[in-house]
Amino acid sequence: MTVSAFDHPFLSGLLGDEEIAPYFSVETDVSAMLAFEAALARAEAVEGLIPHEAARHISEVCMAFRPDFLELRTATARDGVVVANLVKQLRTVVGAPYSDFLHLGATSQDVIDTSLMVRLKAIAFLLSNRLSDLSMVFGDLDRSFGRNPLMGRTRMQAAIPITVSDRIRAWRTPLDAYRDRLTEQRLPLQFGGAAGTLDKLADRADAIRATLAQELGLSDIAQWQSQRAVIADFASLLSLISGSLGKFGQDVALLAQAGEEIELTRGGGSSAMAHKQNPVAAEALVALARFNASLLSGSHQSLVHEQERSGAAWMLEWLILPQMVMASAASLRLALELARNIKEIGAKTHNP
Amino acid sequence: MTVSAFDHPFLSGLLGDEEIAPYFSVETDVSAMLAFEAALARAEAVEGLIPHEAARHISEVCMAFRPDFLELRTATARDGVVVANLVKQLRTVVGAPYSDFLHLGATSQDVIDTSLMVRLKAIAFLLSNRLSDLSMVFGDLDRSFGRNPLMGRTRMQAAIPITVSDRIRAWRTPLDAYRDRLTEQRLPLQFGGAAGTLDKLADRADAIRATLAQELGLSDIAQWQSQRAVIADFASLLSLISGSLGKFGQDVALLAQAGEEIELTRGGGSSAMAHKQNPVAAEALVALARFNASLLSGSHQSLVHEQERSGAAWMLEWLILPQMVMASAASLRLALELARNIKEIGAKTHNP
Amino acid sequence: MTVSAFDHPFLSGLLGDEEIAPYFSVETDVSAMLAFEAALARAEAVEGLIPHEAARHISEVCMAFRPDFLELRTATARDGVVVANLVKQLRTVVGAPYSDFLHLGATSQDVIDTSLMVRLKAIAFLLSNRLSDLSMVFGDLDRSFGRNPLMGRTRMQAAIPITVSDRIRAWRTPLDAYRDRLTEQRLPLQFGGAAGTLDKLADRADAIRATLAQELGLSDIAQWQSQRAVIADFASLLSLISGSLGKFGQDVALLAQAGEEIELTRGGGSSAMAHKQNPVAAEALVALARFNASLLSGSHQSLVHEQERSGAAWMLEWLILPQMVMASAASLRLALELARNIKEIGAKTHNP
Amino acid sequence: MTVSAFDHPFLSGLLGDEEIAPYFSVETDVSAMLAFEAALARAEAVEGLIPHEAARHISEVCMAFRPDFLELRTATARDGVVVANLVKQLRTVVGAPYSDFLHLGATSQDVIDTSLMVRLKAIAFLLSNRLSDLSMVFGDLDRSFGRNPLMGRTRMQAAIPITVSDRIRAWRTPLDAYRDRLTEQRLPLQFGGAAGTLDKLADRADAIRATLAQELGLSDIAQWQSQRAVIADFASLLSLISGSLGKFGQDVALLAQAGEEIELTRGGGSSAMAHKQNPVAAEALVALARFNASLLSGSHQSLVHEQERSGAAWMLEWLILPQMVMASAASLRLALELARNIKEIGAKTHNP
Repeated sequence: MTVSAFDHPFLSGLLGDEEIAPYFSVETDVSAMLAFEAALARAEAVEGLIPHEAARHISEVCMAFRPDFLELRTATARDGVVVANLVKQLRTVVGAPYSDFLHLGATSQDVIDTSLMVRLKAIAFLLSNRLSDLSMVFGDLDRSFGRNPLMGRTRMQAAIPITVSDRIRAWRTPLDAYRDRLTEQRLPLQFGGAAGTLDKLADRADAIRATLAQELGLSDIAQWQSQRAVIADFASLLSLISGSLGKFGQDVALLAQAGEEIELTRGGGSSAMAHKQNPVAAEALVALARFNASLLSGSHQSLVHEQERSGAAWMLEWLILPQMVMASAASLRLALELARNIKEIGAKTHNP
Repeated sequence: MTVSAFDHPFLSGLLGDEEIAPYFSVETDVSAMLAFEAALARAEAVEGLIPHEAARHISEVCMAFRPDFLELRTATARDGVVVANLVKQLRTVVGAPYSDFLHLGATSQDVIDTSLMVRLKAIAFLLSNRLSDLSMVFGDLDRSFGRNPLMGRTRMQAAIPITVSDRIRAWRTPLDAYRDRLTEQRLPLQFGGAAGTLDKLADRADAIRATLAQELGLSDIAQWQSQRAVIADFASLLSLISGSLGKFGQDVALLAQAGEEIELTRGGGSSAMAHKQNPVAAEALVALARFNASLLSGSHQSLVHEQERSGAAWMLEWLILPQMVMASAASLRLALELARNIKEIGAKTHNP
Repeated sequence: MTVSAFDHPFLSGLLGDEEIAPYFSVETDVSAMLAFEAALARAEAVEGLIPHEAARHISEVCMAFRPDFLELRTATARDGVVVANLVKQLRTVVGAPYSDFLHLGATSQDVIDTSLMVRLKAIAFLLSNRLSDLSMVFGDLDRSFGRNPLMGRTRMQAAIPITVSDRIRAWRTPLDAYRDRLTEQRLPLQFGGAAGTLDKLADRADAIRATLAQELGLSDIAQWQSQRAVIADFASLLSLISGSLGKFGQDVALLAQAGEEIELTRGGGSSAMAHKQNPVAAEALVALARFNASLLSGSHQSLVHEQERSGAAWMLEWLILPQMVMASAASLRLALELARNIKEIGAKTHNP
Repeated sequence: MTVSAFDHPFLSGLLGDEEIAPYFSVETDVSAMLAFEAALARAEAVEGLIPHEAARHISEVCMAFRPDFLELRTATARDGVVVANLVKQLRTVVGAPYSDFLHLGATSQDVIDTSLMVRLKAIAFLLSNRLSDLSMVFGDLDRSFGRNPLMGRTRMQAAIPITVSDRIRAWRTPLDAYRDRLTEQRLPLQFGGAAGTLDKLADRADAIRATLAQELGLSDIAQWQSQRAVIADFASLLSLISGSLGKFGQDVALLAQAGEEIELTRGGGSSAMAHKQNPVAAEALVALARFNASLLSGSHQSLVHEQERSGAAWMLEWLILPQMVMASAASLRLALELARNIKEIGAKTHNP
């Protein structure tokens, strides 16, 4: 089944991203969920809530555990969320006398949101690296061709001559700002228990949360289970990234159409016309920008997250965020490829 | 890789659809593309453009052919579209002297858009059946519980008593209209050649197009390669369907929260609270409605489809339409399930 | 106050529409609401629910009545809807003994939705006329320049030569379909009373509704107060119109940029560069298309209209639909202007 | 003409904002544009580009000047932007010998974008104050009712008891973060000249820009005329604000529907049912949140801003941003009103 272009056997060649996609594999997701359960047990042992032996045993089981995925699927269809069944399967393996110490005081949302944060943290690092790489490639292009004249164009009309350097600055400047924001982004632990009050942990709640956050490498803030700006704001940043790269793509496509101010080393072939060189990556950048801008609206709809947990608003995030990450990742990959394929840019100066 | 909830190993249990998903498998897509190539060859033979023997041979090869998917992926990354390489692979198998008669006068977009139309036609039929089924289930509920009193609620406040029948009418009426629209939807062949003019078919272009449309069971209209209302309008209908089912879901969730006017046979379990029965399907309907409403915006952005073919606007459709179909399909599946799980609806009348 | 470009003292010169805007003036809206109240009284008199003398008196008052707008504003802030206060003001003027016969069995939503439908009916007629006009202008251009060669462009690259006629067909064909849909659009009366059951009209409800619909020139269907496809579907059509005109605009902007295949009689001036001729109308068409595509998403969000009346979903429509109408109207106005400003199109053929 | 609810004679009572709306009046806009021209002249005089006497005269004229708005409208329709004609009118009044020193080196976009930034700066201050006020009202509610029990609800079902304090924390926490972001927001001067290179200012460009920024109270960064994250990112923040307030509204509407855990001092009346108290402000918060989330998508579409200036992407911002500001402003106004109308919240504890 291949509904999404990002997972699609051949479209993913164009629109997918092999480095980022594994973070949305079910294996990585489950693995992060198990890491949450193991770290929780350890944090609760440190705070004396459960025996150290229980934490040790739970940690070991979590490291080796492989769930029955078919059962997870059936349970998700029924429960609307995978965690209840995952914990049930896990409890069977943990066995007496420790199984009751598993998932103690936690709820599904703690596991799922935290698994996402752990993975987004890794993804943010990778995307920020790509932003740096792309910025460097633009720097190289600037050094090589920056002084070439380029026709400045405003409102789809030739205006006055500028230089290639001027154009590259408009492509590059936003990227540096996004990289800083990705780097500074503090992705938080979600930990609130049944209704956000960590009711089962009593006066040790704060200490356990702090330990848990530290162990998972996330920042320690009070639960945000119905405060979804964490997600919506990250989505905004993803859309800013793909949006600015869409501007780069559109500019290259327009340069390639005019044909005199850019030379690309590679373009795509046509099934009907052998002579054509289509600026495929440039077009894909525009498509991905518009895709993310559209999804961003859904992401912000999910801010209207009623009461202590909204199944509807939460599922809406599941449908949207992974795709937005993939679209921005693919945009960065394609932009890098496209920038590297610029063989020459700017009007040729015909010196004698 | 499982970026999309519709393809996801466990989320698809909740949000996917096993009957519709196969239409977006690469096998079904390629198979529909091969059917196009075979039918094109036959239509061109009928009109005397290519030898009958060539058409026969091409048809046979198309029926048996399995492409090298890895090569398709690499080529799509390069060309931005799969068809050039698919045709190339196919030509090798067809071999001399007939390989030049393959794909004659056609272009990538003809193959891809037509494959989508062929599949949407089957999907429209299945979705219209589900709309009928759901309408019948609502009819059954109406017969069983229609005369039960229900508190009419306006602006989130109790207004005046209505009957269950009144409420069901609001759920059911739009579905019948959508079913009629799906049934009457005339999905067209796309056939235009390199730039929409069928330039290689000369005066036989119209006849070949008519024959091709008839053989593929599609309606015969002039090429619409840059007129994307065909897609955007279908997307609107998909969003109307999921939107109206979202209203049904929201109503059931509100009834379930109040707790006195509905009884559901099954709800989802909780990892933290054993006593809870979550109205999972109802929530999912709301999520899917809001998801489709968000994507619809992207679908209409792709109406700004420049010149004779816009790679950017076209790719945007690839990213969006399959998901919208899946969201509406899953909505119908979940709505059927939810409607069938209504054990009782309306205030209980306490007769002596 | 001029938040909206459509109402803005100078931006409306570019983006507004003087013919359609008055339909969204408060005077026209109130006038249509009063027409509803008058027609309702007459229909109820015909069916014997209220005295003929009461209907006559109410009709006369409705024709002459001018509300206190400041009071309407204060009341809307409090009630979330204008009708309660409008009816209260009107009742004072109607006076005893007839004031109780005013608005009998109706609710705010009946008045507001029906006022919208009455105005949309007139608007649909005007927009369909503009679609016809534009189609004719394209027909004229086709007759004048249709045989001129034009470079066919696919994926932002020159493909093969086509004719101007081929390009114009892509602009014109969708318009004819939209015109037919606008013409065939059956805009319905909304009439349901407090919670949609016309509870106060008993067995005369259907007859009164039929008479009311006929008098207001709307189609007679059962209340659709929580079935908002009527609005969302109209919004989809508005977005299809502006979207297809956005394609026309984008094509002209690209032609104007290349500069050799189109000549426009007028473009906009620049504050910095006297020599420039900006293709302003073409750009505006793209902006309006993307604007409507964005709003369409909100329009479909309002399909999740809970219970018998959702204040939230309804207000969302108020925020969106008038703007979408204006955007499509302005698109048609600008497209007509742009099409008429095409002095020449297609490559010049240099005959000896 | 009253297309927009924000400008509407009676809807603005509910959905408008009297404090923020004037920032979008044409008078305030023109006044900010004239302030730009005056400050530019002074900055250019300081740097020796124009005579001090010219700057003095231009400043004086700018302070007193009232343009012919009808002429501005006609010119905007033609030029797609108001500045060329505004400057022309202004030049006539400035007269010889100084008129050539007006607007020297600047372009329309400098004037329009900077006018927006100046106004957004004032607006950001006002909105951040409202966020503080609302946070304080929530603090007061917390002090009064925080220890009251409240049924925690997850997935539209009763979960476990929490306290009112827990719920208020979810409403309040995001607001404090938004206030900080608004306060820290550095709104930049836009100053680039015809194609972004300040070509006419030669080596004094940087100094003039720095002086100009300082005088206008904006931050001094290089031109961002085709880098629209400045706008899209501000729009994201506006949508985060209205989104979180939408959650507050939805929660109150659900509390009001259940009826036992909240008492509001005022609700809206109904035209059909005298007994009803509709939670109008709560509903409006949900509507405004969904409206902004929809518009946000269009705002991010405008990141695909081609070349040195895109008329289409720029106009799209004009259509969207003012409305998003108004929606967030009205949300804050309504949330304050709603929070202050909470007479009691939480389950009543029946002590002996």
